[in-house]
Amino acid sequence: MKPGSDGRRIASTLMAFIFLLGVQPARAEERSAQKALTVAEVLAAAKAEDWRALDPENTLYLELAGGRVVIELAPFFAPNHVANVKALAREKYFDGLAIVRVQDNYVVQWGDANAEDPAKARRIVSAKPTLPAEFDRACDDAVPFFALPDGDVYAPEVGFVDGFPAARDRNSGRMWLIHCYGMVGAGRGDTADSGGGAEDYVVIGHSPRHLDRNCTLFGRVVQGIEHLSSLPRAAGPMGFIEDPAQLIPIRSLRLAADVPPAERTEFEVLRTDSETFRRLVQARRERNEAWFLNKPGRVEVCNVPVPARIKGR
Amino acid sequence: MKPGSDGRRIASTLMAFIFLLGVQPARAEERSAQKALTVAEVLAAAKAEDWRALDPENTLYLELAGGRVVIELAPFFAPNHVANVKALAREKYFDGLAIVRVQDNYVVQWGDANAEDPAKARRIVSAKPTLPAEFDRACDDAVPFFALPDGDVYAPEVGFVDGFPAARDRNSGRMWLIHCYGMVGAGRGDTADSGGGAEDYVVIGHSPRHLDRNCTLFGRVVQGIEHLSSLPRAAGPMGFIEDPAQLIPIRSLRLAADVPPAERTEFEVLRTDSETFRRLVQARRERNEAWFLNKPGRVEVCNVPVPARIKGR
Repeated sequence: MKPGSDGRRIASTLMAFIFLLGVQPARAEERSAQKALTVAEVLAAAKAEDWRALDPENTLYLELAGGRVVIELAPFFAPNHVANVKALAREKYFDGLAIVRVQDNYVVQWGDANAEDPAKARRIVSAKPTLPAEFDRACDDAVPFFALPDGDVYAPEVGFVDGFPAARDRNSGRMWLIHCYGMVGAGRGDTADSGGGAEDYVVIGHSPRHLDRNCTLFGRVVQGIEHLSSLPRAAGPMGFIEDPAQLIPIRSLRLAADVPPAERTEFEVLRTDSETFRRLVQARRERNEAWFLNKPGRVEVCNVPVPARIKGR
Repeated sequence: MKPGSDGRRIASTLMAFIFLLGVQPARAEERSAQKALTVAEVLAAAKAEDWRALDPENTLYLELAGGRVVIELAPFFAPNHVANVKALAREKYFDGLAIVRVQDNYVVQWGDANAEDPAKARRIVSAKPTLPAEFDRACDDAVPFFALPDGDVYAPEVGFVDGFPAARDRNSGRMWLIHCYGMVGAGRGDTADSGGGAEDYVVIGHSPRHLDRNCTLFGRVVQGIEHLSSLPRAAGPMGFIEDPAQLIPIRSLRLAADVPPAERTEFEVLRTDSETFRRLVQARRERNEAWFLNKPGRVEVCNVPVPARIKGR
């Protein structure tokens, strides 16, 4: 028994059912041309060129005792924050710092637990301690925006830009990344220019969309979010860890390009400007799996996780 | 530095700021009559009668090694499932069974890992093994429905009924509970009548609204969800735990009324038909905390967690 049917169990049940009927399953390509596909069927029919490899110059590895968290950066939306986080990673700023906050249904956050104490704070050498906010940017029609037709509570238009959930406002001419599960942003104080990437957070709960355009988002977790989302929740206000002994150490934060090729996680992400992604969104809207008795007929932007996989698998 | 400002840190900063200005803070009641209140201020101004105690006949305690999970039941929406889960609890059906599924950004699920094996399955004595679905119910205007004005991607109308997030469709005359974080439902197989409460799940990720009207929801976690949401994610398909040694044992699942009063968690929940709740929703829409530089101006139903607290605190 299960709610939902995203997994292999349903897929294999469906295949078993098809074989029981004595029907030969159509080739993947033929099936993909039909209409009532499931999510699993759409992905099975994807072509190699529907996937793009992560760029090592644009990928971070957050190394924890629990494992590696792979983060894809979004320089199109937050060029200065991405450059600064890369500079921080390259000066090994985060190594030995810690996860300082684990708030249930909200965020996991890392940085320097002693940041407010000049005597103890980790020194930033080449990177900038703070930056002007990059809450949004000008619309750019040269970059494909996959728009969802189903509406959104918070923004006039939502969809995907190169794998990232994003919103757009044609009236103001602005676009911005949105706070779906797994998005990575820069913490800040009360002013817009008080963040910069030295303290960062990942969404581990229901999408806190009220944070949109209040924080600079600059990436998303592509793999390994369970190493963050399953951490013990901290008892302090806002989920901050108050006992230094409970801080969760960061072994290192590295740019993939700075890691020997043999130690990299070769990941690829489904292209959100592909026909396969359009079909995937449609499959998420229709939920054609046998398990679904009431088809939702609509889909919300944060309910379309962009598929990622180990290269070629 | 932080995203968001729900906690005491911001509240105390604000108070410090007010005192620095030499301004006497208005009494809670006066402040609550003004418009630009924060969430913390609205709650501070709540009156005793804005809270209702959990009914022990309508409250479950799921006891795990990590602690107690308190679940409020929703007989208005799922009377038969609530009665059956209570019957299962009273025959101690769940004691010694286990959490069998932990799927990241989705659900934690418990039940009998051997349910499919007649030789090993736990026997259901007085309760029913399955029930007809209670996906939705007829609208009932005698029961207050706190409607949100901000729209919804999935339903014509959403809001709250007696503490539970719910949707309503005036055209069909139906209403139903919706899959926000912490909602509790009955797993099922491919047919509508294949669930019944012997295998249950809790939402621990972004609201999987495509499950609305596909599963019977019958409660919500009021306290202790961190004992579920921080469990290690399972590696099996759909997050099922494949190695029996990795199952997470349930010490017991009890109706609060069956627990000695001294061992109960005396919780109360903010009344969603109160003026205070109306102000709380407005505060979540406006986000008047100093930290918010861009006011969202809108709020989505699953971004309004209904406040709960230990009685009288």
